[in-house]
Amino acid sequence: MALISPSRRLRRTPFSDGVEAAGCKAFTVYNRMLLPTVFRSVEEDYRHLKEAVQVWDVAVERQVEIRGPDAGRLVQMLTPRDLRGMLPGQCYYMPVVDETGGMLNDPVLLKLAEDRWWISIADSDLLLWVKGVAQGYRLDVLVDEPDVSPLAVQGPRSDDLLARVFGDAVRDIRFFRFGWFDFQGHDMLIARSGYSKQGGFEIYVEGWDLGMPLWNALMEAGAELDVHAGCPNGIERIEGGLLSYGNDMTDDNTPHECGLGRFCNTATAVGCIGRDALLRVAKEGPVQQVRPIAIDAPSLPGCDRVWPLMAGDKRVGQVTSAALSPDFGEGVAIGMVRMTHWDAGTQLHVQTPEGALPAEVREKFWI
Amino acid sequence: MALISPSRRLRRTPFSDGVEAAGCKAFTVYNRMLLPTVFRSVEEDYRHLKEAVQVWDVAVERQVEIRGPDAGRLVQMLTPRDLRGMLPGQCYYMPVVDETGGMLNDPVLLKLAEDRWWISIADSDLLLWVKGVAQGYRLDVLVDEPDVSPLAVQGPRSDDLLARVFGDAVRDIRFFRFGWFDFQGHDMLIARSGYSKQGGFEIYVEGWDLGMPLWNALMEAGAELDVHAGCPNGIERIEGGLLSYGNDMTDDNTPHECGLGRFCNTATAVGCIGRDALLRVAKEGPVQQVRPIAIDAPSLPGCDRVWPLMAGDKRVGQVTSAALSPDFGEGVAIGMVRMTHWDAGTQLHVQTPEGALPAEVREKFWI
Repeated sequence: MALISPSRRLRRTPFSDGVEAAGCKAFTVYNRMLLPTVFRSVEEDYRHLKEAVQVWDVAVERQVEIRGPDAGRLVQMLTPRDLRGMLPGQCYYMPVVDETGGMLNDPVLLKLAEDRWWISIADSDLLLWVKGVAQGYRLDVLVDEPDVSPLAVQGPRSDDLLARVFGDAVRDIRFFRFGWFDFQGHDMLIARSGYSKQGGFEIYVEGWDLGMPLWNALMEAGAELDVHAGCPNGIERIEGGLLSYGNDMTDDNTPHECGLGRFCNTATAVGCIGRDALLRVAKEGPVQQVRPIAIDAPSLPGCDRVWPLMAGDKRVGQVTSAALSPDFGEGVAIGMVRMTHWDAGTQLHVQTPEGALPAEVREKFWI
Repeated sequence: MALISPSRRLRRTPFSDGVEAAGCKAFTVYNRMLLPTVFRSVEEDYRHLKEAVQVWDVAVERQVEIRGPDAGRLVQMLTPRDLRGMLPGQCYYMPVVDETGGMLNDPVLLKLAEDRWWISIADSDLLLWVKGVAQGYRLDVLVDEPDVSPLAVQGPRSDDLLARVFGDAVRDIRFFRFGWFDFQGHDMLIARSGYSKQGGFEIYVEGWDLGMPLWNALMEAGAELDVHAGCPNGIERIEGGLLSYGNDMTDDNTPHECGLGRFCNTATAVGCIGRDALLRVAKEGPVQQVRPIAIDAPSLPGCDRVWPLMAGDKRVGQVTSAALSPDFGEGVAIGMVRMTHWDAGTQLHVQTPEGALPAEVREKFWI
């Protein structure tokens, strides 16, 4: 791994002091902000995530706040997912597309009120798209990045940990719902969500100064639960088929290619930019699609670029994320595969910088 | 310095193989792409840049291409700089602002033709703003990120090196002008520009596959000129007062605060988004402004966050970039200082993570 030069441009978070004190060993940059990637080791973090509970600095999930009379109209313009049935207190995973149906981001949308929404973004400056659209359509809205930084609590003991800090009522939060809970006199939005398959919550910390007090409170309350600082785990998220924008999809891809067709209500999402293009895709279906790819190898290099997927001499797709899975004893990967070769059981080869390896298209992700 | 985890999301460039072979020691992430920051050492790179010639992978300066009948109108909507007199073959440094006059980027604009422009961007996804505005105003344009990656040649021997590869005609390119030159049968756009004060060029390499052939040709042709792989230098750019978007300014700042008022023709830049807000600023003047700040210290930590500038107990500004200058024997820094304390000679203190240091507001940057 290479070194990263410090600068203000690679923003610290309200939790960075805690992350450093916990011995973070490596970072990535996400939304121009530091995101931890390793604490003890990727494998040790993985095992612990599946057995105990971790606190994750995911402040990089910046919020785009939309407020005002036209807020609801603007949000529906951003996505082919039909938002008419959405209630305050709900979270929706939503593809955001441009006029050609290309993915600009795959955020989680939070409806705070009819005229107030947060978009919890993946790695692109979605704020600029939303501001540009609002400006061009002369909508009566305010669009901003507020001082809100999510802190995730993930792992099977998440309910126990959060109950110790916020009370037992947090146990009643349903999946992809949120409520407001008191912390030292401040209301905090807590959602049952997060970028793992191990269960847990995301706490939307409003106000930079509350970051370290909350971090410390969670660490203290979780001592008996073996709480540890953690981060989105590169193995576990592939096992779970959790896509990463910029890795597994870009603005070249439609939601249908990303396996997100079920979030596209192109028939009813009236006003969505890109709807015309997606109606066409919905009718014909995509010619390539995201698939779980198993790789037969004793070790794998870091997947820092596209790895071509080959059927003989013919390129039929690409792997975009890959890791060796301790639990499944094989390479687990996410790839984009052409229709001709996307059936489960198809045998391919993947070209890594260290040579070609046998690969197989799988029916389902591992967890 | 911390380690950076590899992923496809942190994009490699057409020159990455050359950068790695040349022994790059550290990177930053810029526009979700890898930008080298150190080869031999920051100080050694600095000395060599001022004396010889370097080849820089600045592919992170991604291009926003705007084509079509409304291209000229759209470009003028983006900036308060009056573009009416701009000719094909010219480069303009231009502030890009939102509806409140806040800086969204400070790119270099290239006019290829009346209906075709490239915007060579600093570190924000300006593509999304431009696409959003074009969509909202229903303009007849195509907006894309083309397969174009700038490679810079910087340093006092730049003319000699480029003449060896492209012929003596490159010597006639004037500052912030560009022309087209042949490389192995391909037309390449070469501008006299770059992110240093040592002179040089930027070659806009169209087509990923031409990257390494050009890199290698420059390295071979430059052997007698002591050419070396280099990168924007953290000391030299501060000495020269070259601002860095995300470090020295953000969307909180107006161009006037950034000392870019001379690029704002708010009276005549008709159609510019944010013009109303900037007319107000132009009339009243900013209350804080970018200033050169000298710091009296034998060593400085990495400036990875804002360092408050204090007059006694009162916060009057902040330092956002800082380094120790070998040539000037002091800490050189860029800060934003309030009107009450921005006069040259004002004595302040700067609060670094390693303690308070004496600081002085200077009249001019060092080079």
